[in-house]
Amino acid sequence: MSSQDPRTADLGFARVDLERAARTGDPEVVYGAGKTPDQVVAILRTLHDRHHERAVLATRLTPDALDAVGRALPEAAIDPMARAATLGPLPTPTGTVAVVAAGTSDAPVAAEAALTVAVHGAAVDRIDDVGVAGLHRLLAVRDRLEAADCLVVVAGMEGALPSVVGGLTGVPLVAVPTSVGYGASLGGVAALLAMLNSCAPGITVVNIDNGYGAGVHAARVARRAAPR
Amino acid sequence: MSSQDPRTADLGFARVDLERAARTGDPEVVYGAGKTPDQVVAILRTLHDRHHERAVLATRLTPDALDAVGRALPEAAIDPMARAATLGPLPTPTGTVAVVAAGTSDAPVAAEAALTVAVHGAAVDRIDDVGVAGLHRLLAVRDRLEAADCLVVVAGMEGALPSVVGGLTGVPLVAVPTSVGYGASLGGVAALLAMLNSCAPGITVVNIDNGYGAGVHAARVARRAAPR
Amino acid sequence: MSSQDPRTADLGFARVDLERAARTGDPEVVYGAGKTPDQVVAILRTLHDRHHERAVLATRLTPDALDAVGRALPEAAIDPMARAATLGPLPTPTGTVAVVAAGTSDAPVAAEAALTVAVHGAAVDRIDDVGVAGLHRLLAVRDRLEAADCLVVVAGMEGALPSVVGGLTGVPLVAVPTSVGYGASLGGVAALLAMLNSCAPGITVVNIDNGYGAGVHAARVARRAAPR
Amino acid sequence: MSSQDPRTADLGFARVDLERAARTGDPEVVYGAGKTPDQVVAILRTLHDRHHERAVLATRLTPDALDAVGRALPEAAIDPMARAATLGPLPTPTGTVAVVAAGTSDAPVAAEAALTVAVHGAAVDRIDDVGVAGLHRLLAVRDRLEAADCLVVVAGMEGALPSVVGGLTGVPLVAVPTSVGYGASLGGVAALLAMLNSCAPGITVVNIDNGYGAGVHAARVARRAAPR
Amino acid sequence: MSSQDPRTADLGFARVDLERAARTGDPEVVYGAGKTPDQVVAILRTLHDRHHERAVLATRLTPDALDAVGRALPEAAIDPMARAATLGPLPTPTGTVAVVAAGTSDAPVAAEAALTVAVHGAAVDRIDDVGVAGLHRLLAVRDRLEAADCLVVVAGMEGALPSVVGGLTGVPLVAVPTSVGYGASLGGVAALLAMLNSCAPGITVVNIDNGYGAGVHAARVARRAAPR
Amino acid sequence: MSSQDPRTADLGFARVDLERAARTGDPEVVYGAGKTPDQVVAILRTLHDRHHERAVLATRLTPDALDAVGRALPEAAIDPMARAATLGPLPTPTGTVAVVAAGTSDAPVAAEAALTVAVHGAAVDRIDDVGVAGLHRLLAVRDRLEAADCLVVVAGMEGALPSVVGGLTGVPLVAVPTSVGYGASLGGVAALLAMLNSCAPGITVVNIDNGYGAGVHAARVARRAAPR
Amino acid sequence: MSSQDPRTADLGFARVDLERAARTGDPEVVYGAGKTPDQVVAILRTLHDRHHERAVLATRLTPDALDAVGRALPEAAIDPMARAATLGPLPTPTGTVAVVAAGTSDAPVAAEAALTVAVHGAAVDRIDDVGVAGLHRLLAVRDRLEAADCLVVVAGMEGALPSVVGGLTGVPLVAVPTSVGYGASLGGVAALLAMLNSCAPGITVVNIDNGYGAGVHAARVARRAAPR
Amino acid sequence: MSSQDPRTADLGFARVDLERAARTGDPEVVYGAGKTPDQVVAILRTLHDRHHERAVLATRLTPDALDAVGRALPEAAIDPMARAATLGPLPTPTGTVAVVAAGTSDAPVAAEAALTVAVHGAAVDRIDDVGVAGLHRLLAVRDRLEAADCLVVVAGMEGALPSVVGGLTGVPLVAVPTSVGYGASLGGVAALLAMLNSCAPGITVVNIDNGYGAGVHAARVARRAAPR
Repeated sequence: MSSQDPRTADLGFARVDLERAARTGDPEVVYGAGKTPDQVVAILRTLHDRHHERAVLATRLTPDALDAVGRALPEAAIDPMARAATLGPLPTPTGTVAVVAAGTSDAPVAAEAALTVAVHGAAVDRIDDVGVAGLHRLLAVRDRLEAADCLVVVAGMEGALPSVVGGLTGVPLVAVPTSVGYGASLGGVAALLAMLNSCAPGITVVNIDNGYGAGVHAARVARRAAPR
Repeated sequence: MSSQDPRTADLGFARVDLERAARTGDPEVVYGAGKTPDQVVAILRTLHDRHHERAVLATRLTPDALDAVGRALPEAAIDPMARAATLGPLPTPTGTVAVVAAGTSDAPVAAEAALTVAVHGAAVDRIDDVGVAGLHRLLAVRDRLEAADCLVVVAGMEGALPSVVGGLTGVPLVAVPTSVGYGASLGGVAALLAMLNSCAPGITVVNIDNGYGAGVHAARVARRAAPR
Repeated sequence: MSSQDPRTADLGFARVDLERAARTGDPEVVYGAGKTPDQVVAILRTLHDRHHERAVLATRLTPDALDAVGRALPEAAIDPMARAATLGPLPTPTGTVAVVAAGTSDAPVAAEAALTVAVHGAAVDRIDDVGVAGLHRLLAVRDRLEAADCLVVVAGMEGALPSVVGGLTGVPLVAVPTSVGYGASLGGVAALLAMLNSCAPGITVVNIDNGYGAGVHAARVARRAAPR
Repeated sequence: MSSQDPRTADLGFARVDLERAARTGDPEVVYGAGKTPDQVVAILRTLHDRHHERAVLATRLTPDALDAVGRALPEAAIDPMARAATLGPLPTPTGTVAVVAAGTSDAPVAAEAALTVAVHGAAVDRIDDVGVAGLHRLLAVRDRLEAADCLVVVAGMEGALPSVVGGLTGVPLVAVPTSVGYGASLGGVAALLAMLNSCAPGITVVNIDNGYGAGVHAARVARRAAPR
Repeated sequence: MSSQDPRTADLGFARVDLERAARTGDPEVVYGAGKTPDQVVAILRTLHDRHHERAVLATRLTPDALDAVGRALPEAAIDPMARAATLGPLPTPTGTVAVVAAGTSDAPVAAEAALTVAVHGAAVDRIDDVGVAGLHRLLAVRDRLEAADCLVVVAGMEGALPSVVGGLTGVPLVAVPTSVGYGASLGGVAALLAMLNSCAPGITVVNIDNGYGAGVHAARVARRAAPR
Repeated sequence: MSSQDPRTADLGFARVDLERAARTGDPEVVYGAGKTPDQVVAILRTLHDRHHERAVLATRLTPDALDAVGRALPEAAIDPMARAATLGPLPTPTGTVAVVAAGTSDAPVAAEAALTVAVHGAAVDRIDDVGVAGLHRLLAVRDRLEAADCLVVVAGMEGALPSVVGGLTGVPLVAVPTSVGYGASLGGVAALLAMLNSCAPGITVVNIDNGYGAGVHAARVARRAAPR
Repeated sequence: MSSQDPRTADLGFARVDLERAARTGDPEVVYGAGKTPDQVVAILRTLHDRHHERAVLATRLTPDALDAVGRALPEAAIDPMARAATLGPLPTPTGTVAVVAAGTSDAPVAAEAALTVAVHGAAVDRIDDVGVAGLHRLLAVRDRLEAADCLVVVAGMEGALPSVVGGLTGVPLVAVPTSVGYGASLGGVAALLAMLNSCAPGITVVNIDNGYGAGVHAARVARRAAPR
Repeated sequence: MSSQDPRTADLGFARVDLERAARTGDPEVVYGAGKTPDQVVAILRTLHDRHHERAVLATRLTPDALDAVGRALPEAAIDPMARAATLGPLPTPTGTVAVVAAGTSDAPVAAEAALTVAVHGAAVDRIDDVGVAGLHRLLAVRDRLEAADCLVVVAGMEGALPSVVGGLTGVPLVAVPTSVGYGASLGGVAALLAMLNSCAPGITVVNIDNGYGAGVHAARVARRAAPR
């Protein structure tokens, strides 16, 4: 597999897959963890050069990488809360994903999920601060939950929110445990285990803090949902 | 410490502590796990002989032990769901403990907690089948939660119920994780971790399936609560 | 919450929720673990009496419970591989779920997922014995994967199959780890962790051996997918 | 749920719950972890503006946040050992909580518990340096233990102190494991497990280092205790 | 290493080491777990034939193996509580080991430790039922603790007893965690971790339920202690 | 064992083993973790002085240590990606090891393995970026896998690559889990468990990130392979 | 993939892969766990019918399955210690694998490894009872270790034997942890971790009790070793 | 317990126990972790003022604390390798403890153990760099092992050294696991588990990196050993 392979671009420090969209219908994504700001900029630019017509997403960016992208690629959209950036036009959304978060500390993960949904072609409805210790706030948004084609439910600590939401509605639901907590939260493992053991049927789970993965799944579900 | 010690009774296979009541105000208790039916009967009889005036509690009894107690001590009260028995009159209750259970599978642990509360001198209000996947059932009993002097909340699987109850009321709350579940429930560890990480403040937790321990704590709280 | 509540039926040993279908669009389900054969039969009969027009599902049945259901409810459909039974007509399927299994030992979990999908209103395409150690078998069914509206991918041991399938297609995918394995498989935890860490984006995961939960999620996704 | 909701105050970076007191009888609390000093100051000020008549508590403050609070809110009371601050008058205490600590390293957690108790309306009796390796110090304060309406017992390392205290008295007891230790203490998990397995009945447990949670539970118990 | 090796006896199913005594000064020991009753009898007989003058120890014997030894080797001494047997005369004891146990459930492990000490040449002082929830019983035997040359302290559940004993005396102490407990005791891991984290200096620990290992260490210490 | 022992060189801070090559046929190796740059230089120089004719390897070097080696020993070969250096001529290779890596983040571990193979006397064929989410890249190099005498397969996250490679070929295979991942990857434990449970027979595993250990094993296998 | 696929034989309850030998050079293997005796017999017979000229291996057989194979396939060779059977002629061995076991309890795993080696085409040298607590026995067989082309080293409990053997020789070494042990051995995890952390370079590891996997790897190495 | 208690000295930030020596025969010890350099100096000075005639030990000192002690207390003896200091004359040694270490990385823990032994009244024989991968070095010091009254054996990684030493001699042995290692060493847990599962009888274990605890136990054993 030489650098002449038209399906990849060899940047020296990385070989960029140029045909994921063809294979899965999803946009290209740069996982920023462990990459220098310059590397992030270079990969974003390369992917964008090949596909001006659709957005590229970069996630898990350090503050330095966010700065570098903002300076080098002024047309990029920076999302500091999501620690992410996009380059190129977002697709016209099909279907809607409601991104539900338990507390303010879960906001970065929820923001990553929401941006991922938008880049992957679905509309987003953000519902924040509806933790289970204040049920009235959650019950007040029940119709927005029902109106979505897929739900992403983000929670740390005891991870109870997906169970409560899953008891209120039959919309497909992806739960995202966050590393918010301390002591016996074990870096998010407590919330992860709780979500895997939910008594509400049909809840599926992604890795701790993996807003991106939840967003990809939810957007795929929403995109293929029939209009109602 | 010879067998002449008036504070203990030496049965050969066990040395029975006869003055726990004096020291802590609680009744004597026989932990049945690992004991033969005959041993359970013998210890119950010994304790009862010393203290006719108050109840003795035996927990974690096998079906054989429950049978043996029923045959040998016809005046004993058998509670098959709680896998427990009492011998001697229950105390007049002071204060009330609401014992709340998420699902029918949690019933044995809730029953053990309830019987323990009664033996330790408080009244019991049982609230069953109010799991978080069906919130309307829980919201319907909110006034009973508020009316209690202490709550014991029993749940397996994701262990979310204490967080939801703890968000509804400020009554002192003891959470009991149960071993109900499979796979990543890890024998109740998932529920235990969830309860320890509850976002609702003031929730305390006991060991997995430890309805007895929760009942002791709750009864002690209820007994000293001022009448309202 | 009295037994007069029209939303529940009180059988003494269980309070049966009669309106889950109204709330979530899903059928009633009896979780058989920890219930006696007679209890399973009684709950199935009660639920069926209320809703003759649609199927009720009973899962995690022991061989004795399967026998009892077969004798007492001859119109029930018994699925020994799935350790499950249904009573009442299956709904007309909408959309298709492909249930993909790595090895023959994973068959019970795959069968539970497949039956759950059918009871929840989607068509099933079973693809078995396509473990990653023999890639040619998986590559030969690539078009069937693409034709589905949702995928359920079942694997034990190292749990690698979802990652490989997720790299081949962008169809929404739910991974089910099984407890197949020994030693450091830790009862399925190895496969669970692998699936949570998949390098293929958009994979979501359910509890170990939870074919039922995966089936519910997948059927919900398939049911709302637009016809293609 | 718009920012017009009278039950919350939207500060942009956080939505502050203004009616917890009405719902649970407890004061408002700011959890400082992950918040900037300016955010802590802003939330404290907002909550205090609404409720001049009662104290607001801020916990888990960094040294910088403690400084910022001291400078911006000179009427605030700073407790450096507890890493916490209060703003507004403490309530008149009802009942007494004894906060018992094993070693000097456990002091920050004990201080957090003690301040929480005071803010939540009970009196505090601090008993320090009574670890189980020097029993004479603990036995010397037995009457103070008995005089309390609830006990908070703080210990790291092997977490044995609650068992010993629980054997001396029948006062309701909340155990707090701390992360004091190294190696196989596993960040406090060893002490947590020990406390959950205590042989003394009626001991309940909170998360590692969670002096706040223990203080809330204990104050609730003490507040409703009948005067003796 | 042929079967002619004078240092070993080849019984077909096992090769028996005949010179451990020469190498370490300790008696031969048969670990009975996983061996048939006939194999246990055969190994005991072989070792005894070589060394009539000193005792051989067999541990972890099933009830069947205990019966078989009793019938086939009538001169053997059976200790049912320790699940062990000895064949041949016990050595004249040098020094004393106090074997201290927290509860009656710990008795089998304490008995194994005590018999091991005796077979390895030291005298035994058994101190039972001195758990930390009843300190007065422990304080009453303080002089017996001081009089020993080494202590073996056996406890399950929270494993607190060694810390308390270690604070009372400077005698060398070996702690033995037992698997007594349930739920979060994790089969004795909770007690093991507690003992490893003891705040009392100089405590050493052996594997869960390993009364034999503790007995060997303690007897070696006591044997070489100078008479006082 | 005095410093006069001709088999070791005592540098004060370390005693260097000079005869490993004689004992195992392998070169001397300096494990750089926890050593100062000056210590690394000193040990490399000492080993090189004794054995000018063959290479010495230093692994796990910090950037400072790599710099120090480059300045002090200009004839050393620095491999920044492998965080390693060699001094002295590499041996003439016998046999070939293919070092296969899943993603660019796994490159440092793969580079350490490759350099180790070369220093231990085998030729290296590097195959990068062939993760299981893009099977076509792996299938394109199938003949290079078959041509090797031993395979080292490096992967993080779900660790699925060794299973897929192991299903394609019967060449001896060593799997190396890396710590690449987050959340439930548990620092590489997820990949380690996956590899230990591989459904492809004959896969062996080394510690997380242990490219060195895998390289030693693979080179030993390749060196003794008969020419084909 | 129909049952007409010439590469597989569909037995109804299993689809048997008939071309593994062509793909990897290894014989067909039946993993007996979870299969009925009749199923084991049927698969063995089918595989043997296709390949009379070479052996088929069945592992993890229950006593009932071993009996059934012995009765139904009298020409099969039964190995009760390995809990395995072979059908068809063993290949002429190329190269030698030394299978080294620490204790008699490790014998079943060592026997499985040895039989696997033989079926996969290498000669076996069994070295038993050379645990690290009796080093003289191991040192006495040092030349047999050196004479092998690959080593399989089997040990339970603390798993130290591979480190000691790996320090004596540079022959490629595969370590097999066994589940022999109790308490903190955690079912073999202690030995597994020890082997993964060996201080002797070049040691690779397989799953707990996986004698089969170690045998496959070792035979592949030995088969391609050049004659010496 | 007022500051007037003659058994303690209240320094404001700590209450110093002045009578441990009377109670256990051991010197006072300052555990430096979490204390400022000034606090360490103050406590050392206070303890020394009360007991000029015997040494005080301070362990786990940071480099800053070591410097501060050296400057403020010039008569103190600083041991940088052990990260410890002593003040006051060491006792005349009784009996001998051999402190055995596997590798150079284990030196800090071995040094802490050795200094602790000396302060607690026994002579020390240091034996370094005798890891199991080079058995000849260990076998060469066998007589020094036999000559000791107690052994402290320090090892990280796979923790095999105590098993090998324990097979060579019957001297009482304390094993100390260290946190030396990476990946699956889990911060020393691998070595800890290995030592707890040693196949050599009579080995006892302390917490990870706890050279101090091992030294206290060993010195107590050696001090009471009869002269030989």
